[in-house]
Amino acid sequence: MIKPRTLSGFRDYLPSVMIPRERLMETARGVFRSFGFAPIDTPTLEYLEILTGKGSDETDRQIYRFEDNGGRSVGMRFDLTVPLARFAAQHISELGTPFKRYHIAPVWRGERPQAGRYREFVQCDFDTIGTESVMADIEVVAVINRLLESIGFDAFQISINNRAVLTELLRHLDLADKSVAVLRSLDKLAKIGRERVASEMCETADITPGQADNVLRLAELSGDAESVLDALPGITGGGEEAIGAINRLSDVYRGALAAEVPPHRIKVDVSIARGLDYYTGMIFETTLNDLPSIGSVCSGGRYDNLAGLYTKQHLPGIGASLGLDRLLAAMEQLELLPDAATPAPVFIAYFDPQHRDDYLRLSARLRASGIANEVYTDAKKLGVQLKYADAHGFRIAVIAGGNEWAAGNVQVKTLATKESAEIPYSHDQSGELVSCLERILASDL
Amino acid sequence: MIKPRTLSGFRDYLPSVMIPRERLMETARGVFRSFGFAPIDTPTLEYLEILTGKGSDETDRQIYRFEDNGGRSVGMRFDLTVPLARFAAQHISELGTPFKRYHIAPVWRGERPQAGRYREFVQCDFDTIGTESVMADIEVVAVINRLLESIGFDAFQISINNRAVLTELLRHLDLADKSVAVLRSLDKLAKIGRERVASEMCETADITPGQADNVLRLAELSGDAESVLDALPGITGGGEEAIGAINRLSDVYRGALAAEVPPHRIKVDVSIARGLDYYTGMIFETTLNDLPSIGSVCSGGRYDNLAGLYTKQHLPGIGASLGLDRLLAAMEQLELLPDAATPAPVFIAYFDPQHRDDYLRLSARLRASGIANEVYTDAKKLGVQLKYADAHGFRIAVIAGGNEWAAGNVQVKTLATKESAEIPYSHDQSGELVSCLERILASDL
Repeated sequence: MIKPRTLSGFRDYLPSVMIPRERLMETARGVFRSFGFAPIDTPTLEYLEILTGKGSDETDRQIYRFEDNGGRSVGMRFDLTVPLARFAAQHISELGTPFKRYHIAPVWRGERPQAGRYREFVQCDFDTIGTESVMADIEVVAVINRLLESIGFDAFQISINNRAVLTELLRHLDLADKSVAVLRSLDKLAKIGRERVASEMCETADITPGQADNVLRLAELSGDAESVLDALPGITGGGEEAIGAINRLSDVYRGALAAEVPPHRIKVDVSIARGLDYYTGMIFETTLNDLPSIGSVCSGGRYDNLAGLYTKQHLPGIGASLGLDRLLAAMEQLELLPDAATPAPVFIAYFDPQHRDDYLRLSARLRASGIANEVYTDAKKLGVQLKYADAHGFRIAVIAGGNEWAAGNVQVKTLATKESAEIPYSHDQSGELVSCLERILASDL
Repeated sequence: MIKPRTLSGFRDYLPSVMIPRERLMETARGVFRSFGFAPIDTPTLEYLEILTGKGSDETDRQIYRFEDNGGRSVGMRFDLTVPLARFAAQHISELGTPFKRYHIAPVWRGERPQAGRYREFVQCDFDTIGTESVMADIEVVAVINRLLESIGFDAFQISINNRAVLTELLRHLDLADKSVAVLRSLDKLAKIGRERVASEMCETADITPGQADNVLRLAELSGDAESVLDALPGITGGGEEAIGAINRLSDVYRGALAAEVPPHRIKVDVSIARGLDYYTGMIFETTLNDLPSIGSVCSGGRYDNLAGLYTKQHLPGIGASLGLDRLLAAMEQLELLPDAATPAPVFIAYFDPQHRDDYLRLSARLRASGIANEVYTDAKKLGVQLKYADAHGFRIAVIAGGNEWAAGNVQVKTLATKESAEIPYSHDQSGELVSCLERILASDL
């Protein structure tokens, strides 16, 4: 006998966990589509040289790699960005630009498993490629807003920044050649605080405490978006390129308002830079007001050239990624997830085999009226069946024995309250039962 | 520069292909849920010994396998049945029975790529585990019927058989010990015809031409379900166990009618046995009347014990698998697939940057009314934008320049017919435009 078990860092998804995961992915797909983003998919396995071309040493080490039966060096994708770059380079002449795609798919990283980190996880990305238009930047804010709203959140904040504003400040302070190290440290502001960021900057980027203070003053600008935007020209020195960068940021803010993103949800936060070195323009992060500690649940930004390793065609783009696992963890902590192991709300008990066909027909009638339902498979005692219904999180049980079938009634039992009602039903007149079930399902019980 | 390319046997899915794929998977999920099947997911990688435990030598050879960084022998799953068996053995005490799950996920087989065969493909399975009840058998027929109907097919045939009927005939003919070889040959009846099946049977199973003729007479019973069911007792000899097997088959047929599967869609076909050796009871296949040559698009059956390799718990079950790739190929051949590279039907041209905020707001208003739409990202010439809209398969273009915005109108252009109409629109009064778009989208154009 072989011991049934999963590999360390990998997970089985049981129904009660998979149901909200699927719902979240469906909501995301619906939102992406409503903006004209189209789905794509790419192979799990790629030539290893495709995957290792751009990644850092760290991601390279984490790639699951092997030699296939044909002697090719292959690897399992570790993100959806490298496959997108390869895909775009290969197909862009057929696809045309702008190319707007979403991609929801698993990726693999052979990293050390830790709490909340897995070796297999799903990424959920959307990007617009082949345009530098501010319209695409604005749209990212609108998509993020609609994603979080559609998932069921009301209180969240989308932080926006233009990385070029910081770059221009650094140039103004004569720190242009140290920008990567400075931005890396700055990115930790929320995590480790001003003092430690300042000392790290001085150390790793070799700058003076005065310069660090200047950078931090910019990053710490706070208050409403308008006042932050107003203060920026002064702090950055107000050179032509700085003003250009500030205008772009301001444009994205104002455009997002026009796209009906509520102003209180947008924060202009000049401190966010995000670790990844390839973001060159706008940057986005999203935090939940009720659970800011969980970190950003949707992040992204603009990059100069997506696919330079695979094509000479210059492909600027912008996009973001919804953090499915993090969002689900947040929803669980905030008790926003229903605890059900069934996707169907109505349970039909089966305890009179002589009426087997009646149960089947009742089930078909309800389903045809749009009510998902399950007939229990075995004519066991009612108690056993109701225990099953409770354990699975069904909301209503429909019960009928010989007497009920003879009288043309069924019993409708609301499982949360244990309330029951007799409802007239025959296969030809199912309207009253359907209305009754719809009414209960529409209520909060 | 690295040449962008995919591995042999693997595919990129471009939007025009991925859109109907996603729609098909969504339809399938909706149908599974409407019967109370719940989603699960399992890891892509499993311990190799889990995967090789039950498979045939052929599938074992096809497994993508390697040693991970921790020195473990691992493999990529080659189907969803072995992971289901491992999953059930591991979790069934928590899940309880009956356990009804669906699983839509990719699998990998390192086989020689051929036309229409890939090394990575998606399987779409549903199963009910832990019950021998005929209710579960009947439900499979009802699910298949609803799947095909919901996908958009009207003319299809679900062939049902009880493998035990054949087994009983073979016992009656004294061929019980040769059943595997006989059934394997019989399974080719539709493909290679009576004569070749008969001679193959005599050769591989070492039986007489008379015996082969007997088996074939049973398999060739045709006509409506009732008359086939009536003829079975006579041909099988009418022993007690044969009658039991025939009654089960008859029960499934009659139950499916009660579950409102139209009788003309069900065929009792005693010839189907399916190659897999582990089916022990009911067997299902589904063919499209307009394209029978493509083979079965949804097949499955009942098995005695799912997870015997991993647990002592006896887990009988029944299920089937929807052939996504085959169905999509059929739908393409039958011209049932729309050819669009966008999931949004409405295109909003953007050619007056002064009104940027108006386009954004218009887009938001339409989206809030449930109309998926895309604003073009760059203020290029209208001709360029309409070419983009046509190429992507948008159905309507909404066009407004300075004059229109001033007059409180937009132009609505139906792209298939080139018809245009001026429709009143302001951000506060969008009702007329929404109705007009809904009307056009509801039509066949």
